[in-house]
Amino acid sequence: MNYDEIFDKAIDRLHAEGRYRVFIDILRNKGKFPNARCFAGHNGPKPITVWCSNDYLCMGQHPKVIAAMEEALHDVGAGSGGTRNIGGNTHYHVELESELASLHGKGAALLFTSGYVSNEATLATLAKILPGCIIYSDELNHASMIAGIRNSGCEKRVWRHNDLAHLEELLANDDPALPKLIAFESVYSMDGDIAPIAAICDLADKYNAITYCDEVHAVGMYGEHGGGITERDEVADRVTIIEGTLGKAFGVMGGYIAADQKIVDVIRSYAPGFIFTTSLSPVLVAGVLASVKHLKQSGEERAAQQANAARLKELFAEAGLPVMQSVTHIVPLMVGDPVKAKKISDTLLAEYGAYVQPINFPTVPRGTERLRFTPGPQHDEEMMQDLTNALVEIWGRMELKVAQAA
Amino acid sequence: MNYDEIFDKAIDRLHAEGRYRVFIDILRNKGKFPNARCFAGHNGPKPITVWCSNDYLCMGQHPKVIAAMEEALHDVGAGSGGTRNIGGNTHYHVELESELASLHGKGAALLFTSGYVSNEATLATLAKILPGCIIYSDELNHASMIAGIRNSGCEKRVWRHNDLAHLEELLANDDPALPKLIAFESVYSMDGDIAPIAAICDLADKYNAITYCDEVHAVGMYGEHGGGITERDEVADRVTIIEGTLGKAFGVMGGYIAADQKIVDVIRSYAPGFIFTTSLSPVLVAGVLASVKHLKQSGEERAAQQANAARLKELFAEAGLPVMQSVTHIVPLMVGDPVKAKKISDTLLAEYGAYVQPINFPTVPRGTERLRFTPGPQHDEEMMQDLTNALVEIWGRMELKVAQAA
Ligand SMILES: Cc1ncc(COP(=O)(O)O)c(C=O)c1O
Ligand SMILES: Cc1ncc(COP(=O)(O)O)c(C=O)c1O
Repeated sequence: MNYDEIFDKAIDRLHAEGRYRVFIDILRNKGKFPNARCFAGHNGPKPITVWCSNDYLCMGQHPKVIAAMEEALHDVGAGSGGTRNIGGNTHYHVELESELASLHGKGAALLFTSGYVSNEATLATLAKILPGCIIYSDELNHASMIAGIRNSGCEKRVWRHNDLAHLEELLANDDPALPKLIAFESVYSMDGDIAPIAAICDLADKYNAITYCDEVHAVGMYGEHGGGITERDEVADRVTIIEGTLGKAFGVMGGYIAADQKIVDVIRSYAPGFIFTTSLSPVLVAGVLASVKHLKQSGEERAAQQANAARLKELFAEAGLPVMQSVTHIVPLMVGDPVKAKKISDTLLAEYGAYVQPINFPTVPRGTERLRFTPGPQHDEEMMQDLTNALVEIWGRMELKVAQAA
Repeated sequence: MNYDEIFDKAIDRLHAEGRYRVFIDILRNKGKFPNARCFAGHNGPKPITVWCSNDYLCMGQHPKVIAAMEEALHDVGAGSGGTRNIGGNTHYHVELESELASLHGKGAALLFTSGYVSNEATLATLAKILPGCIIYSDELNHASMIAGIRNSGCEKRVWRHNDLAHLEELLANDDPALPKLIAFESVYSMDGDIAPIAAICDLADKYNAITYCDEVHAVGMYGEHGGGITERDEVADRVTIIEGTLGKAFGVMGGYIAADQKIVDVIRSYAPGFIFTTSLSPVLVAGVLASVKHLKQSGEERAAQQANAARLKELFAEAGLPVMQSVTHIVPLMVGDPVKAKKISDTLLAEYGAYVQPINFPTVPRGTERLRFTPGPQHDEEMMQDLTNALVEIWGRMELKVAQAA
């Protein structure tokens, strides 16, 4: 048994496929974001514009968020010092859970250290509590949901992306007496499309299933109070469990679920990924509390961000760049090759100071490698035009296909 | 299928066994910790002394840690805004990984959002990369290691706690050609005993296994630079992978592994729990960096904490309280019943303002329910005497057994 050889081979496979990842080393400039500094390979940090952040609304630099975190830091210190059950349940946690429950009109909410953990822990635990449970999973569901479903050990049926007929076919095929859970996302973050939530809930009613909706890319972003697509579409009360992150539109870090008090109590009491881990730092929780409260009453950031996303799509389309259909704030450009996607990204960074990460397998299926732009409320017209011009130049240089203006 | 009924039953089981958990709602007083405020059930917050924090060295309130977090908050903002690969790799992350690698004398280190995730993600991924891998797991291993091992889907052999003969028996029984991984903790946090690491490494050499050591309750706490028991016992270079948390002795939040560059690169490239999640907030990372650096050159906190732990054990023993054998900083009192353990804890909090959480199943085996005290460098003699007197009074009132003075 030669361990080194096996590890070498695992890394070699990535190089061979052109998808070995090199992390870009940056620091954001608070107050001036999307401006940032890029380290490594340069003499001293070099100024860049970030085009691939999931701090969609720039809440990570919002004065209210910063002030709340500073206050918590000085009042209670850096960490919680324990699991939720053993010394790590701060008053901030209790308050934030009640704020998130109210955001989604649910009886309770539960915090996790990340959105990933909230998906993994909740799905794995739920399916174990429900004997014989079958999970129906959209084929494009996020890795964290897939992990939870796999780790639950229960039966899984994968339905074709957003395909209601296929979902119904699978539901109808199974024993009506067995517990069923339908798991899906509201906004699919790599394509920018949206699930037909009301119709999924209709099927859930018909087949007596419960529903689990990942709103990671929608909370803070959609709905009058930032309650996500379930708020916008007025279906929050029909979805059994809503899951979200605190690290994207809310700008900080962490994850949560919102549901009936009873379901939350079950997950709280049984999920190892919730129980056996130091709770979120109260500094983070205080920041999120300020962020959620702000986005509940302010629609300004959402409006500016939607306007910029629409504008960037327009500029890309006019320039003949292969912008993908997206009904949301996400602006993906299809490349279809991991090596080319990385090349374009490297050139943008080195020559134009524009940072956008190539998205390769396993984040997206092979052959659909892409660049994914997320303009925020603080990217201005000039930045967008410069970016478009740079892409057109690189597209030409690399002899990539352009389309007629849309 | 009546979902509510199933959820109700799951909760009823916990009540019936006396292990339904109610979280104590507190805020620590930065600068005055272990003093804190307790909410709920009182008119306004009530002052308490915390006896069950895993912020073992009070680094969560250390001025250097607070200053570093404040600086990062103002320089770069609240969150990283992305996964490590997509916009969330800050210069702080890069620096902390290099600091942690050097702390353990390893080629590289990798950050995770928690110690739980570092265990789960690393073990699950390693065992998938090594075809046919068998994992040998100490029976008292933490839930997060158990989760990783289970989720790897590989063969698992459980060896009796710290029992080298049993471990060897299991190793000798398996095909020498198969890859093998021995997983254990250095300090077992509920009993306070320590693994015979050198002897485990001898067996690993003999049977060509790799080793994985969870140093969560030891990093920052043992060894001249806080490198853990592997530093103290001079065996860090013999352990293949060292895992630690940033949320206990380092006082903040997060987790990591340290190992050869090659192994770290494999986990970095393949572990879903590392790849598909927003990276640690740079504010936390900056705080940890200050904490690790401080504890590398200062032994003062470690010495004070060890002295207080020894003193509290002495006071408990003199008073005839059932203090368990522990060769570390952990001071467990055996109760052996979940309802009584909770009653003692409730009385301490309500009548004496002393907060210690009862430790029940599944954290410890049924019938070994206990109270677990973690005196820190800032618990003084008076606090310890008051606590001992309170316990003696409650023990008498509840007619619990006392021993002769040791
Ligand atoms: C759809 C989806 N769900 C869950 C997550 C995980 O959330 P977090 O970053 O908070 O771990 C992500 C991305 O990170 C995601 O894209
Ligand atoms: C032995 C052990 N390993 C891992 C963990 C998880 O670390 P974290 O709290 O950083 O998730 C814990 C406790 O929380 C633990 O006791």
